Amino acid sequence: MKWIPPMLAAVALFGVVAAQAPKSQPADEAAAAIAGGKLPPGYRDWRLISVAREEGELDDIRAILGNDAAIKAYREGTRPFPDGTIIARLAWSYDSSEVNNKAFGRRQSFVAGHPKNGVKFMVKDSRKYASTGGWSYAHFDEGKPLHDVSTLQRCFDCHLAIKDHDFVFTRYTP
Amino acid sequence: MKWIPPMLAAVALFGVVAAQAPKSQPADEAAAAIAGGKLPPGYRDWRLISVAREEGELDDIRAILGNDAAIKAYREGTRPFPDGTIIARLAWSYDSSEVNNKAFGRRQSFVAGHPKNGVKFMVKDSRKYASTGGWSYAHFDEGKPLHDVSTLQRCFDCHLAIKDHDFVFTRYTP
Repeated sequence: MKWIPPMLAAVALFGVVAAQAPKSQPADEAAAAIAGGKLPPGYRDWRLISVAREEGELDDIRAILGNDAAIKAYREGTRPFPDGTIIARLAWSYDSSEVNNKAFGRRQSFVAGHPKNGVKFMVKDSRKYASTGGWSYAHFDEGKPLHDVSTLQRCFDCHLAIKDHDFVFTRYTP
Repeated sequence: MKWIPPMLAAVALFGVVAAQAPKSQPADEAAAAIAGGKLPPGYRDWRLISVAREEGELDDIRAILGNDAAIKAYREGTRPFPDGTIIARLAWSYDSSEVNNKAFGRRQSFVAGHPKNGVKFMVKDSRKYASTGGWSYAHFDEGKPLHDVSTLQRCFDCHLAIKDHDFVFTRYTP
């Protein structure tokens, strides 16, 4: 499949498809940016859902952020997540901190270093993404979108393991 | 299952905007709450500065959040931090995730579990807290403030190690 600049396609097709889009369902600037192959402006300002650490090849420490719809759904326990929900996964290198270890008097402190393993998003639109559980998956490396279909398909394949939680691994931690 | 081209979503969502605005709270209100022995309302909505992991007795995974003044100072590199800066340290148990490990096919995934080691704050007021480097240190366990002076003094004693960075260990990670 050849990649077509998404916003160009969006403009070209807008007149046709817009008529099919429900006007009662307000979409989101961030979702449109992601679908258009761009990092959504301001995602780094989104609120924290939780944190995690992956060993192995990933070897990172990560934060999972959510847009307003995501945070609201998490806090209210709304499942499945409503359309408009966006969950972001940021990750950084897992660095031993010499400064912190010195203060603690022992080697115990690990901090986030440089950005690593890209930034990932899950965008909920139960109708548009019905064939992948209602979610689209996006991955950005240094701000550039990953277009490889098989790789993005693997996101969904893996998230199938957590289908009972609406395909979302991360739990909210207060 | 089929991957849905992002452009399709771009079309559907084209032109509709819903701005994401970070929650903000007057810095003095939050500082007053902390000084009064109360968790500042809404601190869990503050934006993320970075994440970290402590082994040893602490054995937690943590997130460091900042109020608006903190985030602004971090991003602009303002040092010393201006009065009104508040930095929050949340922490949770460091739990192996069986669900995630199963999906990854190996034991590599650790997630945040229950809240652990309290919630801590550093509040900058260069005049009021001049004797402790311009910062006050507060610790809450299950929402209750720690009043033990010697324990809080040890916060400052430890942060003295990082005096050259205005007593703040955590670096902002984009």
